[in-house]
Amino acid sequence: MTPETAGLDEAHTPGTPAHGASAPGAPAHEVQAHDTPTGGRPVVPSRARLRPLGTRDVRLTGGHWGEFQERNRRAVLPHVEHWVERTGWLGNFDAARTGRLPADRRGREFSDSEVYKLLEAMAWELDREPDQGLEDRFHAIVVRVAAAQEPDGYLNTRFGRPGQAPRWSDPETGHELYCVGHLVQAAVARARTGHPDDLLVRVARRAADLVCAVFGPDGRATVDGHPEIEPALVELYRVTGERRYLEQARLFVERRGHHVLDEVEFGREYFQDDVPAREARVFRGHAVRAVYLAAGQVDLAAETGDEALLAAVARQWRQTVAARTYLTGGMGARHQDEAFAEDFALPPDRAYSETCAGVGSVMLAWRLLLAEGDPAYADLIERTLFNVVSTSPSADGRAFFYANTLHRRELGAVPAADEPSPRASSSLRAPWFEVSCCPTNLARTLASLAAYVATSDDEGVQLHQYAAGTVEGGLPGGRGVRLVVTTRYPVDGEVRVRVDGDDERPWTLSLRVPGWARDGATLTVGGTTRPVGPGVVAERRSWRRGDEVVLRLPMAPRFTHPDPRIDAVRGCVAVERGPLVLAVESVDVPGLDAVDHLRVDPAVPPREVGGRVVVRCARVALPEPGWPYRHDPAPVGAPGFEDVPLVPYHAWANRGPSTMRVWLPAV
Amino acid sequence: MTPETAGLDEAHTPGTPAHGASAPGAPAHEVQAHDTPTGGRPVVPSRARLRPLGTRDVRLTGGHWGEFQERNRRAVLPHVEHWVERTGWLGNFDAARTGRLPADRRGREFSDSEVYKLLEAMAWELDREPDQGLEDRFHAIVVRVAAAQEPDGYLNTRFGRPGQAPRWSDPETGHELYCVGHLVQAAVARARTGHPDDLLVRVARRAADLVCAVFGPDGRATVDGHPEIEPALVELYRVTGERRYLEQARLFVERRGHHVLDEVEFGREYFQDDVPAREARVFRGHAVRAVYLAAGQVDLAAETGDEALLAAVARQWRQTVAARTYLTGGMGARHQDEAFAEDFALPPDRAYSETCAGVGSVMLAWRLLLAEGDPAYADLIERTLFNVVSTSPSADGRAFFYANTLHRRELGAVPAADEPSPRASSSLRAPWFEVSCCPTNLARTLASLAAYVATSDDEGVQLHQYAAGTVEGGLPGGRGVRLVVTTRYPVDGEVRVRVDGDDERPWTLSLRVPGWARDGATLTVGGTTRPVGPGVVAERRSWRRGDEVVLRLPMAPRFTHPDPRIDAVRGCVAVERGPLVLAVESVDVPGLDAVDHLRVDPAVPPREVGGRVVVRCARVALPEPGWPYRHDPAPVGAPGFEDVPLVPYHAWANRGPSTMRVWLPAV
Repeated sequence: MTPETAGLDEAHTPGTPAHGASAPGAPAHEVQAHDTPTGGRPVVPSRARLRPLGTRDVRLTGGHWGEFQERNRRAVLPHVEHWVERTGWLGNFDAARTGRLPADRRGREFSDSEVYKLLEAMAWELDREPDQGLEDRFHAIVVRVAAAQEPDGYLNTRFGRPGQAPRWSDPETGHELYCVGHLVQAAVARARTGHPDDLLVRVARRAADLVCAVFGPDGRATVDGHPEIEPALVELYRVTGERRYLEQARLFVERRGHHVLDEVEFGREYFQDDVPAREARVFRGHAVRAVYLAAGQVDLAAETGDEALLAAVARQWRQTVAARTYLTGGMGARHQDEAFAEDFALPPDRAYSETCAGVGSVMLAWRLLLAEGDPAYADLIERTLFNVVSTSPSADGRAFFYANTLHRRELGAVPAADEPSPRASSSLRAPWFEVSCCPTNLARTLASLAAYVATSDDEGVQLHQYAAGTVEGGLPGGRGVRLVVTTRYPVDGEVRVRVDGDDERPWTLSLRVPGWARDGATLTVGGTTRPVGPGVVAERRSWRRGDEVVLRLPMAPRFTHPDPRIDAVRGCVAVERGPLVLAVESVDVPGLDAVDHLRVDPAVPPREVGGRVVVRCARVALPEPGWPYRHDPAPVGAPGFEDVPLVPYHAWANRGPSTMRVWLPAV
Repeated sequence: MTPETAGLDEAHTPGTPAHGASAPGAPAHEVQAHDTPTGGRPVVPSRARLRPLGTRDVRLTGGHWGEFQERNRRAVLPHVEHWVERTGWLGNFDAARTGRLPADRRGREFSDSEVYKLLEAMAWELDREPDQGLEDRFHAIVVRVAAAQEPDGYLNTRFGRPGQAPRWSDPETGHELYCVGHLVQAAVARARTGHPDDLLVRVARRAADLVCAVFGPDGRATVDGHPEIEPALVELYRVTGERRYLEQARLFVERRGHHVLDEVEFGREYFQDDVPAREARVFRGHAVRAVYLAAGQVDLAAETGDEALLAAVARQWRQTVAARTYLTGGMGARHQDEAFAEDFALPPDRAYSETCAGVGSVMLAWRLLLAEGDPAYADLIERTLFNVVSTSPSADGRAFFYANTLHRRELGAVPAADEPSPRASSSLRAPWFEVSCCPTNLARTLASLAAYVATSDDEGVQLHQYAAGTVEGGLPGGRGVRLVVTTRYPVDGEVRVRVDGDDERPWTLSLRVPGWARDGATLTVGGTTRPVGPGVVAERRSWRRGDEVVLRLPMAPRFTHPDPRIDAVRGCVAVERGPLVLAVESVDVPGLDAVDHLRVDPAVPPREVGGRVVVRCARVALPEPGWPYRHDPAPVGAPGFEDVPLVPYHAWANRGPSTMRVWLPAV
């Protein structure tokens, strides 16, 4: 089989076949979409290898992700509601209704979108666990938004009124279509969670209809500087069946890359207008824009059968993962333009790795997984969820990282509790930002997390992520499958999947063995245990209620070595345990500069002591300050070794200001 | 002696005493300023350890710097003249005169300053080699500038007219005082090159008088976001004797650091308004601003006898050199805010190292050298001149690097010949930039370069930089000293200094032995050769016409190893030869990615073959693309070694688009 279907592991590691690919090189085995494309699915392609199971099919009941979903409901959502009100970003809609714009306009040009992402998050959350109070708050916000919509469907608080810039006058930086995109995404979430005729859906359709009228085949032949409208319109087509939305998405995708936008300081690659999608080699420019656009391209390809477009995105994804992705799954190295840097330019101490790029990467990889079945996509989703998405919120859910650096050299300032912070200036999470895309993006992702866990096809059900909960999957002919997943993953590596149904016709249960689980994974079925390797393990049989499959993943902490082309971490190792990237944090190592004085002995594997992973380190004496370039290598004293405890990277910076490293120099 | 006076060498390297310090810890041996502070000196402190010798005392007649000065006259100056006209930045002054502003305003808010820096460059150049044509062009520009000055002395084409923002309304980003600063610096250059009553001087004085009136003790208690007015006002005081200019400079220096400016996105450290000068630990924020400000602080301290302020700047300089300076002498790692990064965060592949920061660093180090006599300052000047200032212009003098990266991973786009380029997007130099501070800064630096070569004190003459030419220095009592320097440095390391005068009373000739010349430097005097080490070697005797001193510096190419705290170049070595940093460039190594495949054998010293420095390298086979983080270190095949030729870093990118590395991984 080809390396591309071996999971997210080192090059040329033999793997097992991808989902839906019975033989190497076999053509795609397509499945038909669900008859009723609702059920809490963010993405419902008409044609794909795998059918998504939604938030109504999959319930997460505890563990890491159950706790994050609870934190999202209890803390993140009320916090975000509070801040969009406090900053006046929600009030902008009231000001529009009452004619107080532009005087009373607050926030950046894209602030409307934060309200829409909040609505999307609330819509998912209402489906996960209905609550009248939350329902009422959701509806109240929708009413305020709806009241700002113009008679022709236009809805944006920043443009078009006397004293404001004209509508659609700034495609490069105005974010108008971007905002419509998030409005539509919120409406799609609402429609797919049982409210296809909700006021929000009607508002979004009217806004989308205007977009089609203005930017259609005979309209303005341009695109938005920030992609987002593209996947939104495809999804709205899927929800409504209105082909003009799909056609409009196609126009936006096909126009981009032909220099339809004016040049900006960071070049046209900043908004992916440099090269047409089919010709690009790798993702480039602003990372969030790049992955949102690619998600829309996959959506479009799925609906139009455009295999060439799908292949182009997949090819760019592979190159991006091979050369432009952090160990955490984080994407986007550059601060200046929030952009991908060149291949292998992945500095840990100036990593941007924006939370929203992590969210967008999960959205994209999920679409590619549905389209192609390659477990590598699910591997990256797992890595990104545990090490980027999980890292953004504080333990109390009321502060967030916008950027997710892999090396923090200085404590930085403590963020203000009462005002928005700069984006990447502290070792501590901040309650809000001037550009506060990340908290709302996090909220909608956590609320819909169950939708990224499992799929089905005509042969059976596939588990891609492991979390305690239940999975109900539909097979052809109205056959129902129910699975109960019991696991403490990633605390330990045992995943028990119990069949809870009695259809005796055979079907296939497929489990992903993560790319990192190279040695020691086993699968126990019917009392028989066998070793399994990275990729997909599939068991086809006549399952009976109570049958159990146990996947055991090797959770011993391990060293990880970087590709020699990544100059910035040459001579360093990282420590991982299961899907978690670990880090050393200064609160665990006396001395402010201590994390930069540690040198790991790579001959002594990391191990667990008292519930924590420790690594054997020397604490070196470093040269006295002076001209830092020397005739001879600096003598580095290494007086004895000690065990240094590590923390999961996602949990760092919850104990006060600290310095931190993921990559540790070897002795 | 203290390490601070050992020259710019590794910590704790024994050195020889600094200029003017007869014994360790001895108090400063102050000299009095010249009676006539003209003679082409950019900086003329009233009190210092060393008296500067100016462009009328020192003539560079050939070699590296002679060629650069010729290139500056022949190519850079006409090129800059052409572009300030073509872009309309000079035309802005005409538009002001004829009432066509703001409609016809062109360029960024600081574009006036480019005209002033051009005038400064022309003033120095006219002194170096008078020419009526150049004189006429200079005067014509001054007339156009003068015509735009308001009756009260205000002079800025961007502010204050109907339809423009009010005068002084944007201290954070308006650059109004910054522009006045460059106007004053140009006037100072003109005054000190024999034209104290020039129209330009009168214009600048009127502008400075207005600044004193508006921002004086009872005026607006703020500063400019971009320092530059501070050193300019001190120099204007030195030229005119008007103490109010000095007092105004003092006010600007003392106000800054107390949060007098509004917060900006990059924080108050961006413009050094975060911490008062006396309390700061290190240079931080925007690198050009930081070093310009520090230069003004040293100037102020020299005139006011403020030893604490001088000590604070010197302390920050030492920490900056130890932890925030590139091997090239380049300062400022970050692109986003053109700023210093944290200590030891010095990525070669995302180095900013702005040309203007190099110019400012030379200005600052020269002032510190005059104040303290420490040869470490001259070491950094040499390093920065050869490896930053020399790197900016192309071989033909008509294109420039704005940023000076130490590792270029991709070819990048070829800059447009006919329009301004982005600042740091290509492997090739660009003819002009939207923000085009660097070409004019380079022009004024090259034209005045002779002023950074030598000094005198009451005991004798000190040579700090080595270039073919003549040096005439004044000693007390009207005694004249004339030296003829013959050298091909840095082509070879022999510097012959011949005494060309007949005063038989003893005086001291001091020569700097660069910090990099750790082994093998010798001094020959009167037929006797002895080894000398980094620092200052002083020969006091009764010199006779024709006496010769020969300094021989070891020019064998050498490896240089980075401080272990600089994560970004761990496991790498650089190659230097004399004061030159060398680089490997892809045009010398077949294969586009080739420079990233090289691994140096550090056991084989670099050597010279056929006039080029070569280094023994393996060309490794790198892993196939895939997930770039591995369980085991990637196998790196190293099939045989080859000699790879290097180029002086300053000469790279003159043979078409290329990739390039300064730091080379070791096998």
